Amino acid sequence: MANEKEVMVKMVLDTWFSRVKETDKWLSQLSDAQLAADVSPGKNSGHYLLGHLVAAHDGMLPLLGMGEALHPQLREPFLMKPDKSGAAFPSLDTLRAMWTEVSAKLDEAFRARSAEEWFQRHNSVSAEDFEKEPHRNRLNVVMSRAVHLAYHNGQLALLKKD
Amino acid sequence: MANEKEVMVKMVLDTWFSRVKETDKWLSQLSDAQLAADVSPGKNSGHYLLGHLVAAHDGMLPLLGMGEALHPQLREPFLMKPDKSGAAFPSLDTLRAMWTEVSAKLDEAFRARSAEEWFQRHNSVSAEDFEKEPHRNRLNVVMSRAVHLAYHNGQLALLKKD
Repeated sequence: MANEKEVMVKMVLDTWFSRVKETDKWLSQLSDAQLAADVSPGKNSGHYLLGHLVAAHDGMLPLLGMGEALHPQLREPFLMKPDKSGAAFPSLDTLRAMWTEVSAKLDEAFRARSAEEWFQRHNSVSAEDFEKEPHRNRLNVVMSRAVHLAYHNGQLALLKKD
Repeated sequence: MANEKEVMVKMVLDTWFSRVKETDKWLSQLSDAQLAADVSPGKNSGHYLLGHLVAAHDGMLPLLGMGEALHPQLREPFLMKPDKSGAAFPSLDTLRAMWTEVSAKLDEAFRARSAEEWFQRHNSVSAEDFEKEPHRNRLNVVMSRAVHLAYHNGQLALLKKD
């Protein structure tokens, strides 16, 4: 039987990959016109949410010590600013391609990590703090981003016409 | 430093408790009239979602070996049937009270569990299957329900008027 760290890594990565797959499903089912709409009147558009998710996931690369962000220019319009700020957005075609690219990059990097490495600290916690708070590890970043993704998947689901 | 199982349990329970707290926040901020509305036109109402979450969480008690469900009558209208099925719903007052009751019951039972116990199998996996798939443990149930809760929190958030 696998050791406990390996079991825990599988639990979290399975959760991550299934949530990404769910987003893939919405993106394949939603037309650009549907994605351009607000998830509920006056709330965030699918266009903004897609950019927000790409930017959030892209930021996991440096946080997890997996290289530089591929598209740091997305931080300003999609993480620092709310929707309808007047900031220019990349087209939906561009964001769909970036989503696929960033997901593939994370997929590859995640699968290359050993269980030991997952339980090391992530890059925004100091060595001293990590000594006292060993739950602030890389695997926890993936779990909290999977939860964040689920939150927005619940909103993207509303764009689907029955 | 805590042992690894304790670290993992903390990671998952922190995630659970923070998502429950987020739902508590929406429930305290949303009036009954706001909760009665659909999260987006033609989609689930806040009323249905609250019943759905209470029923899902109540079902964790037997699944995790923490006793019987407190309100099994909620399964039919909120888990077996979709919204707008014509099934009668308990009032929002009743569901708000049940949410608080079930959350408190889970809180108490969760905190009483040892790390060892969290990594044992849950009650819908057989001993043989668990031998091959040790990730199907009790802690995984909590993680997947926290993700489910996040999904619907993203929808409840839309009921708030800015």
